[in-house]
Amino acid sequence: MTQKLKPRIYKGTRDFLPGQMIKRHFIIDLVKEVFEKYGFEPLETPTLELWETLAGKYGEEGDRLTYRFTDRGKREVGLRYDLTVPLSRVVAMYPEIPKPFKRYQIQPVWRADKPQKGRFREFYQCDIDVIGSTSMLAEAEILSAVYEILRKLGFNHFTMRINSRKILSGISEIAGISPEKEADVARGIDKLDKIGNDGVRDELLASGIKQTRVNKILEVLAITGSNNEKLSETTTILGNSDAGRQGLQEIKDLFDFLKMYGIPEEFILFDLFLARGLDYYTGPIFETVIRKPQIGSITGGGRYDRLIGMFSGTDQPATGCSIGLERIVTVMDELNMFPPHLETPIQVLVSVFDENSIPYSVSIAQNLRQAGIRTELYTGRSKLRGQFGLANDKSIPLVIIAGPDEIRSELLTLKNMVNGKQRTIKLAESLEEVKKELNNPKDENM
Amino acid sequence: MTQKLKPRIYKGTRDFLPGQMIKRHFIIDLVKEVFEKYGFEPLETPTLELWETLAGKYGEEGDRLTYRFTDRGKREVGLRYDLTVPLSRVVAMYPEIPKPFKRYQIQPVWRADKPQKGRFREFYQCDIDVIGSTSMLAEAEILSAVYEILRKLGFNHFTMRINSRKILSGISEIAGISPEKEADVARGIDKLDKIGNDGVRDELLASGIKQTRVNKILEVLAITGSNNEKLSETTTILGNSDAGRQGLQEIKDLFDFLKMYGIPEEFILFDLFLARGLDYYTGPIFETVIRKPQIGSITGGGRYDRLIGMFSGTDQPATGCSIGLERIVTVMDELNMFPPHLETPIQVLVSVFDENSIPYSVSIAQNLRQAGIRTELYTGRSKLRGQFGLANDKSIPLVIIAGPDEIRSELLTLKNMVNGKQRTIKLAESLEEVKKELNNPKDENM
Repeated sequence: MTQKLKPRIYKGTRDFLPGQMIKRHFIIDLVKEVFEKYGFEPLETPTLELWETLAGKYGEEGDRLTYRFTDRGKREVGLRYDLTVPLSRVVAMYPEIPKPFKRYQIQPVWRADKPQKGRFREFYQCDIDVIGSTSMLAEAEILSAVYEILRKLGFNHFTMRINSRKILSGISEIAGISPEKEADVARGIDKLDKIGNDGVRDELLASGIKQTRVNKILEVLAITGSNNEKLSETTTILGNSDAGRQGLQEIKDLFDFLKMYGIPEEFILFDLFLARGLDYYTGPIFETVIRKPQIGSITGGGRYDRLIGMFSGTDQPATGCSIGLERIVTVMDELNMFPPHLETPIQVLVSVFDENSIPYSVSIAQNLRQAGIRTELYTGRSKLRGQFGLANDKSIPLVIIAGPDEIRSELLTLKNMVNGKQRTIKLAESLEEVKKELNNPKDENM
Repeated sequence: MTQKLKPRIYKGTRDFLPGQMIKRHFIIDLVKEVFEKYGFEPLETPTLELWETLAGKYGEEGDRLTYRFTDRGKREVGLRYDLTVPLSRVVAMYPEIPKPFKRYQIQPVWRADKPQKGRFREFYQCDIDVIGSTSMLAEAEILSAVYEILRKLGFNHFTMRINSRKILSGISEIAGISPEKEADVARGIDKLDKIGNDGVRDELLASGIKQTRVNKILEVLAITGSNNEKLSETTTILGNSDAGRQGLQEIKDLFDFLKMYGIPEEFILFDLFLARGLDYYTGPIFETVIRKPQIGSITGGGRYDRLIGMFSGTDQPATGCSIGLERIVTVMDELNMFPPHLETPIQVLVSVFDENSIPYSVSIAQNLRQAGIRTELYTGRSKLRGQFGLANDKSIPLVIIAGPDEIRSELLTLKNMVNGKQRTIKLAESLEEVKKELNNPKDENM
């Protein structure tokens, strides 16, 4: 108990001090509100999962990046890597859950990765999924909720990229690529953003796909035009592929639904280059890219109709989307997108003049609290000047002062920290006056 | 990707399905609201801490029960064991945080323990702490917030047991026990609930303390009477111990403050037998025991003025309290203490009659959502009867039906699932009528 350490945090993880927390709460509260408005119900799953639950679900990279260890009872366990696999385990374990099951889940996940700028070992995901529906209405509900959240947060220029694993299968099929190689094709295409068109070509060639077939794939991917033009041209090309035709019909249905939900067309992009890295997707896949400011992908998801069957033996249709909290917080912070004065939950600091004034100050504080006003009572040993400094440092907008004179006359002084003005009021009217002041902290005409 | 598993959860951890989550949210929201009303600000710390941060802070048992492993970069890490040590690390790392720092933190912690009924490997703690105040006002603020939370949750018979490590030191001192043995005395006394008076005697004797000294300790502990009587008798006995006198003065100050805060005396117990297991306490310690229903301790805490110094080299006064969420949820569940109809956030299920009615149903749902009503749109393939079944299974209080007849006449039917009645209304009035219905779900006179 006596060593003295330089205090250190585990690299790639973060402390969220109050100024950050209040911004995170702002986003999470809004996300939760919209999720519930769309009829999603909350779920939480444990941080630790048996390794057998996680193993092999995310592909090789996922296996490698999962934190895993052996507990004292020699059970192999891993830290939650995403929220989709735990949900699938839950659905398989509790067949009594009514379907369609629409659940949301907001919890941290972990990656045993090298920490880099903007990439963390622990970060929050906000997921919504619909289990038990084959209808594209499920996708439409999810994308509409995501759209509403992003607009409400203040993002007005973004693209919801949409594609389908079935369409990618169709493309592989008409290019003469065997089904086992399809995952390689998806993984290759998925890297386009990072390695460009030529990079994808090299990648596909390197995975053993013949030049002519690679050319055929890239030819289809190169189709341009409006969503409708691309859909119709792809439909012509994939006419002979069952998977392709089915995938295209689903995307058409989905686009019709999104129109019904009132999502403007400029936010929707049929994007043949979207592939998504994870192994478990089986149908429509989607990703949201913020165009202005340019920050890349902040949501991602898709349909995974065969994942639950890996746990229960019986497949269940399932689709979902994950919103990454971290990048959203960072961008909103950098661009001042948060509402003003989002710095502390505390509304009032009740100062303490000296030992003798404690009872008076306590009764003021308790009175305000009873009315729901978030009130700090000063508990330190500084004089008034230091207490004003504390209110300033914490961005508390209002300070109440009650010295011997005020106490004797049942008065108190309100100091507005935003405009610096102060005035003395009757104790009996304090609640009303504090409320007035808080509703209008910048009022210059007091 | 092909093995089929019997889905299993890691023992000692739990999934929280929506019916449980909504109850947990109910408690957490209330706790958070009261914490903020008392001027506490939010903090979150990482799940993984470097082992050097956790090691030796909780005593031997804590070291043994901490989940720890070595990461791929060969760094030893551990899972968060409580919220106090991470807070202390944070305060030491960021000296710029304004003091007094009043923070709350609501996060899970982990224990590598054998799972037992009611004891989990992952569970939530809700903590409040005041850093940088030596005043007993800090303790009073904390205990007052805890008192308000428990009363608001519906607990009306509980005891806040209060003692001081300084008083226990004083007792050891006048019994002639060396300071190094004081921790043994505290640990022995702490087990009273489990092993009884004779057990404590045996324990103290076994730790090498002489019979006469053990007798002296037990003689002081045996003091009975009201809080004031016990305080005055203990003051007489400990008159020659500096630590004892200081501890008693603090408890007297604290009791005066608690009275000022309006906490009725019957909720406060000066309890010499309270010792608290953790090594890091230095001053007042406290614990809340629910008397009716008898469920034992649900909050615990105390002053730890030397823990932060273990990280920074400079001690900082600090005190705090932890509320255990799990036992509270269990008891409130068993005793029906939750508000009625706390089963789902969803207020309305908009059914879908057939493929053709989707646009009408979508527009109804979107309209309700825009007004903030939590609405599920049916996304499955069942006929109406199945959709009613779903609303029933999910405890959704209201179902909207719109078949071809309704659509033609711009009408819709509201079915109240609580009283089983239904009526047909105009589409244009749907929002108003739904709100009416939700405000009064049991109205029999529609």
